[in-house]
Amino acid sequence: SGKLWGGRFVGSVDPIMEKFNASIAYDQRMWEADIQGSKAYSKGLEKAGLLTKAELGEILCGLDKVAEEWANGTFVQNPSDEDIHTANERRLKELIGETAGKLHTGRSRNDQVVTDLRLWMRGSCSALSAHLRTLLTTMVERAEAEKDVLFPGYTHLQRAQPIRWSHWILSGAIAGNPLGVDRELLRKELNFSAITLNSMDATSERDFVAEFLFWGSLCMTHLSKMAEDLIIYGTKEFSFVQLSDAYSTGSSLMPQKKNPDSLELIRSKVGRVFGRCAGLLMTLKGLPSTYNKDLQEDKEAVFEVFDTMNSVLQVATGIISTMKINKACMEEALSPDMLATDLAYYLVRKGMPFRRAHEASGKAVFMAETKKLALSQLSLTELQTISPLFTSDVSQVWNYANSVEQYQALGGTAQSSVDWQIQQLRGMLRTLPQ
Amino acid sequence: SGKLWGGRFVGSVDPIMEKFNASIAYDQRMWEADIQGSKAYSKGLEKAGLLTKAELGEILCGLDKVAEEWANGTFVQNPSDEDIHTANERRLKELIGETAGKLHTGRSRNDQVVTDLRLWMRGSCSALSAHLRTLLTTMVERAEAEKDVLFPGYTHLQRAQPIRWSHWILSGAIAGNPLGVDRELLRKELNFSAITLNSMDATSERDFVAEFLFWGSLCMTHLSKMAEDLIIYGTKEFSFVQLSDAYSTGSSLMPQKKNPDSLELIRSKVGRVFGRCAGLLMTLKGLPSTYNKDLQEDKEAVFEVFDTMNSVLQVATGIISTMKINKACMEEALSPDMLATDLAYYLVRKGMPFRRAHEASGKAVFMAETKKLALSQLSLTELQTISPLFTSDVSQVWNYANSVEQYQALGGTAQSSVDWQIQQLRGMLRTLPQ
Amino acid sequence: SGKLWGGRFVGSVDPIMEKFNASIAYDQRMWEADIQGSKAYSKGLEKAGLLTKAELGEILCGLDKVAEEWANGTFVQNPSDEDIHTANERRLKELIGETAGKLHTGRSRNDQVVTDLRLWMRGSCSALSAHLRTLLTTMVERAEAEKDVLFPGYTHLQRAQPIRWSHWILSGAIAGNPLGVDRELLRKELNFSAITLNSMDATSERDFVAEFLFWGSLCMTHLSKMAEDLIIYGTKEFSFVQLSDAYSTGSSLMPQKKNPDSLELIRSKVGRVFGRCAGLLMTLKGLPSTYNKDLQEDKEAVFEVFDTMNSVLQVATGIISTMKINKACMEEALSPDMLATDLAYYLVRKGMPFRRAHEASGKAVFMAETKKLALSQLSLTELQTISPLFTSDVSQVWNYANSVEQYQALGGTAQSSVDWQIQQLRGMLRTLPQ
Amino acid sequence: SGKLWGGRFVGSVDPIMEKFNASIAYDQRMWEADIQGSKAYSKGLEKAGLLTKAELGEILCGLDKVAEEWANGTFVQNPSDEDIHTANERRLKELIGETAGKLHTGRSRNDQVVTDLRLWMRGSCSALSAHLRTLLTTMVERAEAEKDVLFPGYTHLQRAQPIRWSHWILSGAIAGNPLGVDRELLRKELNFSAITLNSMDATSERDFVAEFLFWGSLCMTHLSKMAEDLIIYGTKEFSFVQLSDAYSTGSSLMPQKKNPDSLELIRSKVGRVFGRCAGLLMTLKGLPSTYNKDLQEDKEAVFEVFDTMNSVLQVATGIISTMKINKACMEEALSPDMLATDLAYYLVRKGMPFRRAHEASGKAVFMAETKKLALSQLSLTELQTISPLFTSDVSQVWNYANSVEQYQALGGTAQSSVDWQIQQLRGMLRTLPQ
Repeated sequence: SGKLWGGRFVGSVDPIMEKFNASIAYDQRMWEADIQGSKAYSKGLEKAGLLTKAELGEILCGLDKVAEEWANGTFVQNPSDEDIHTANERRLKELIGETAGKLHTGRSRNDQVVTDLRLWMRGSCSALSAHLRTLLTTMVERAEAEKDVLFPGYTHLQRAQPIRWSHWILSGAIAGNPLGVDRELLRKELNFSAITLNSMDATSERDFVAEFLFWGSLCMTHLSKMAEDLIIYGTKEFSFVQLSDAYSTGSSLMPQKKNPDSLELIRSKVGRVFGRCAGLLMTLKGLPSTYNKDLQEDKEAVFEVFDTMNSVLQVATGIISTMKINKACMEEALSPDMLATDLAYYLVRKGMPFRRAHEASGKAVFMAETKKLALSQLSLTELQTISPLFTSDVSQVWNYANSVEQYQALGGTAQSSVDWQIQQLRGMLRTLPQ
Repeated sequence: SGKLWGGRFVGSVDPIMEKFNASIAYDQRMWEADIQGSKAYSKGLEKAGLLTKAELGEILCGLDKVAEEWANGTFVQNPSDEDIHTANERRLKELIGETAGKLHTGRSRNDQVVTDLRLWMRGSCSALSAHLRTLLTTMVERAEAEKDVLFPGYTHLQRAQPIRWSHWILSGAIAGNPLGVDRELLRKELNFSAITLNSMDATSERDFVAEFLFWGSLCMTHLSKMAEDLIIYGTKEFSFVQLSDAYSTGSSLMPQKKNPDSLELIRSKVGRVFGRCAGLLMTLKGLPSTYNKDLQEDKEAVFEVFDTMNSVLQVATGIISTMKINKACMEEALSPDMLATDLAYYLVRKGMPFRRAHEASGKAVFMAETKKLALSQLSLTELQTISPLFTSDVSQVWNYANSVEQYQALGGTAQSSVDWQIQQLRGMLRTLPQ
Repeated sequence: SGKLWGGRFVGSVDPIMEKFNASIAYDQRMWEADIQGSKAYSKGLEKAGLLTKAELGEILCGLDKVAEEWANGTFVQNPSDEDIHTANERRLKELIGETAGKLHTGRSRNDQVVTDLRLWMRGSCSALSAHLRTLLTTMVERAEAEKDVLFPGYTHLQRAQPIRWSHWILSGAIAGNPLGVDRELLRKELNFSAITLNSMDATSERDFVAEFLFWGSLCMTHLSKMAEDLIIYGTKEFSFVQLSDAYSTGSSLMPQKKNPDSLELIRSKVGRVFGRCAGLLMTLKGLPSTYNKDLQEDKEAVFEVFDTMNSVLQVATGIISTMKINKACMEEALSPDMLATDLAYYLVRKGMPFRRAHEASGKAVFMAETKKLALSQLSLTELQTISPLFTSDVSQVWNYANSVEQYQALGGTAQSSVDWQIQQLRGMLRTLPQ
Repeated sequence: SGKLWGGRFVGSVDPIMEKFNASIAYDQRMWEADIQGSKAYSKGLEKAGLLTKAELGEILCGLDKVAEEWANGTFVQNPSDEDIHTANERRLKELIGETAGKLHTGRSRNDQVVTDLRLWMRGSCSALSAHLRTLLTTMVERAEAEKDVLFPGYTHLQRAQPIRWSHWILSGAIAGNPLGVDRELLRKELNFSAITLNSMDATSERDFVAEFLFWGSLCMTHLSKMAEDLIIYGTKEFSFVQLSDAYSTGSSLMPQKKNPDSLELIRSKVGRVFGRCAGLLMTLKGLPSTYNKDLQEDKEAVFEVFDTMNSVLQVATGIISTMKINKACMEEALSPDMLATDLAYYLVRKGMPFRRAHEASGKAVFMAETKKLALSQLSLTELQTISPLFTSDVSQVWNYANSVEQYQALGGTAQSSVDWQIQQLRGMLRTLPQ
């Protein structure tokens, strides 16, 4: 009988295959998009003379009833409903009879799959966009409120130069808006302002999915970096920030612990999101053209990434809006050696080429370290052994606030520059759809 | 109040964070492993004098009741049960009171998380191993039954040399057993025959998870290749194999279609499985040592990969055991040019160096193409214009069965060689745990 | 001495570390961008009063000499040149003396690294863009020339409906232009029309690199799919296309083989390109803000992806422009069962709902298979046992050219529709920068 | 002429395709393996009667000459040498004439490719193994020498409990030995103790490559984690460790900076290595069986991962062997709240269930925080308001050394336990091949 081996396979359908093949468990989430698409398509059929006005009326009315059942939670699934499209069509037929059979004239399920997913994504991305706007607004407002706080800027996690705390917040806010790019891209895809150029390509092309997953990966990469900074800033050793209890958890073993679980989860989720992006590209790789069932993998990827981003953006907003900063610890962490660049600039202003001034300042750092002094504690005489250009006005270098105020170029850490960044970001935020 | 921005956050816990943090939705799947681990640990406490015999009895009895509730589906979750460990501990306390509080003396939740996952994987991998054994057995038995069928071997999807169909089946069977390697590896991990060497490493190390995910990725890569071959062999143009209806689906639009959805789904799933592997490694990358909440990502990855492999292995077995082969089409696809290598060997046997024989045979192929003849239709006179070594016995070259029988080296496509492969694989299968 | 273990480390610098740290081996490729950036920066210094006009002249002149040495291949590297930036600065100092030391006033190497890479990518992406334009033009012109050729459209690699060959070509051409999106994106990044908003973000943000690598991955995914189609279409069994010898290779063993190595290499390269994208995101994940040396990984990724795309696009153009199609084989592959959908539409036009017409057509397919007839060979009487709506005009269904001409909706496979696609693509190509 | 479009393609071979196709640029690295394989194969031919003893002598002698030319750097490549196999065969023919043509009787280039790669990897992996052994030895010896140093153990980067510094070192050493697993696996692959079972599988199966790349990825993941810890421990705020100058670099802008570039590079390289692993799996996904040119991607992946691991392992050894620890800072970072778990155990030992003791200790932590006291500064009277079980012996809790000594279970942080770990690792290291 063609079933030579393996006693399990006695019927004409393998139940494990049936389950393996079905997508209803997750694609029912698109019930609304499926109804919306079918209503539009039936109007098209009427216009093309393939449905009468009366039949159109019946179908629209029937689809509304199906939608109502989904909305009320009264839609009853059949074991034979393999996906949301067959489920809705089956139910429509039960409600309005034979006319339901006309709905799919000239339309393949592959069309429905891709159209429904595009419609669902259009709706869902606007929710993500709103959460992202809230997060960015929170960051910008917080930057505005706390712009007087100075703390060390780090490169390589080594103390580099004093900067404003707001400067750090805004560096995250800027990095956090790749959705700006993406929106433009998705807009083109999702408002259907243009038709797809080629029917073969239309059902198999999943660029809009891949680009959404990559946007998620890049956005989460930025958030993982922000989380890393805050986890380090929240250690006992740094003590720059303190998470609110709402975003911390205790230890089941160690009574004194307060762990930044929320930040760690945010940091971890980039793996999940990127894994979905990597998985989709691998699935697409080397596929023959047009529709192949392999493409069914797209939906769970989109849904999981949406759900993840949806939580992460809201939790990140909560963290940023409620965490406390410890101004005293931040300012204590400023140390005179962070002004070594300023000391070099002092010499540059007196005419020394920068590379030599850098060397001279390096010698001063070394001298201070050797004498176990702070850089600012070197006497003028000591400095003059390094360069005769040092005079008594060198004492003005040792002022963190002055140092910070030097960086007035756009994008810098001076107050005017931070103000300008806040304005720019507020302007950008106003252009985002509400 | 520390909540300067964002009106949503009024209580002491953000409900979105609570849900973001909780793992009970998926880790309840490990309830049995968690009970098992706690029973073992409580015995350890008694031995260490931290529980009395009576307390141990209470705890074991209580844990059995909790297990019973899970098994019966009567366990009622609390909103505060953030994971399976707290859920079981909370319920135990309700059942036996204060003594429950002693169960976790000297044991952190991080220990429980990793121990439970190892226990769950030990149980689950044996299920996968059984499915894999069934698949391999099916392939080996099918190879045994059909070893008389010849068809073209392809390289670069170009016809290369005639081979036995069984030779192809066995090439898949061999590629399909990386679990052999993995089992050894997991055995070491999971039967706890050795203790972990270092307590810091024990809670943060997830090599056993990464290795399981990679095993899945590599195994699925092999299955994706087998699926690709069968999809191509099942095209109208090849017509070598025909899937049973149990593993095919029709088209909603085109009445004549019978699509190999099952094979396409198998081919696609390597993306999902590898995506989880990639995601976990990305999550692990650059983490500070010991436990960080990032590690919570491990479980959903393991569960999804397990579920995927569990379906794929069973469906693949069903496909292989029920598909029909079309012997006539397979043999029709054999063409004389596939014996060009044999023609070269003919000259080698008459003393010509292989490289020159290869050239001579190439000339014969070109001559036949030019004259629009099959290679076997060239006359002896024509062949002799290429090399005087050709004599009338060259006619014996044009025999596919003889050609195949030449490859008697172990691993080759001669019948004796295929028999040997079947024996080897049967032997290997007998060594797998039942 | 701080070197307690490991006798190898006796000097103050580990030579392996020196090599591990250096990037000159690959970043010398950006010598021109580095000179260009330094010339612009020195003009900025003069404007800010930090260089005199004379010093600016010296520096510009010196930089031109350094550039000349690179261009002539006479630049001699020093062992201490760890990257292109220090190499150029060191050489400048040798050429013009102390003034060279002023060039880097207020500018960190991290600035140079990121600016040079952006400049290099601006130049290089336009080369890729030109290759892509050539590939697309070739495809569009070929589609124009061969639009009379019909062949089977496949879904799931099963014959679906007759389509025009040009329709297939254009489906690839459309899928092949994600650079349209990317250019817009890169334009914004690379022409520096906007300044970066935040100085901390400016040196650590690598979105432009990640987006380039993702663009490459998506573009290669499309090319891998086109390659897969052509490899399958080029099998003996399909025989739809034949690669020119310029893009094929022979076998060292089998004289008759002609392998599509060029297409296989194209199909394979998506792994390499995507691997670089995955690698960069993993490197970025969880990094602390601002510059960390981890970011040095960006350049080799960009260079390898550029080189790969650069070859692939040119080879793909060569393949497409020189391959022959076999019109006879393509048309032979059309079979009456591919008109089963048309048979259903015939009934729809007589008033039957599509779902019932689909069933009726399916019954006809089954009847034909049972009787071992082609679908078109069923007699009218036989068809009428399925539905009384069949009349003698059903014979008009059995015409592939008519079938194809039905699909006149934009994006379809009718001649007018294919013409429209060609026009659209030509229009789009005209808008690409020359 | 078949070249209808694209004027560039006038000759019979596209030079870009020729370069795209060739692998000699990187596979010449396997020259020695190729010679070795050919020598073995020619002996096989002689045994099979396909070469005379004299011919075998000629071939072996010729191959030795070719090898000598590679070793001396005098081998001259031809433009037509597309890979190392054709290069060596071409040169052999120049040296010994026609007999060279017999060397490849019954052997395809695909066989050579895979055999040479296996041979090369066998040789190269033993170099990696030696570097890994040196790294582990360095860590173990350092752990032995510094086992008296206590410092905070962290979970979630929050101070958890006091531990020995050696305990941390050994946690890295343990995590660092996945090669133990891998060696076993590679041994099986590379010493050819078993033959491959199936000739179709033998040329297309690349599990040994995928597993090597995954081993590299997992090993680098561990090293990225160790690097992250050391980067954080090396911040000014932590000041636990100080890199030697040999592994640090300065800043071109900020004279005071000393950056841990070596650690950052180690942390970054996991992206590159994993990217190659991801890329290879993507390339393998969905490939038809037997050899396809796609497989050519394997070699550059293996070479890059080998080179990366080769540097990383040596640099990591240098870092670990030369970095200084700052015992004073480490011990200063211990704080009484890290003994809160010990305080709970104190109550457990007096009979309180652990969960209640945990609560009581938590109350003490809260009381101390409220009163701005260290936990150890709470008076007995204050503690007794929390539980009457506190008596004057509670003062013995406040001793870090005693706390650490409690953890005598195998794998713990007590001195005996650390000693045991050192012994275990030394034992394991002795079993590694020298």
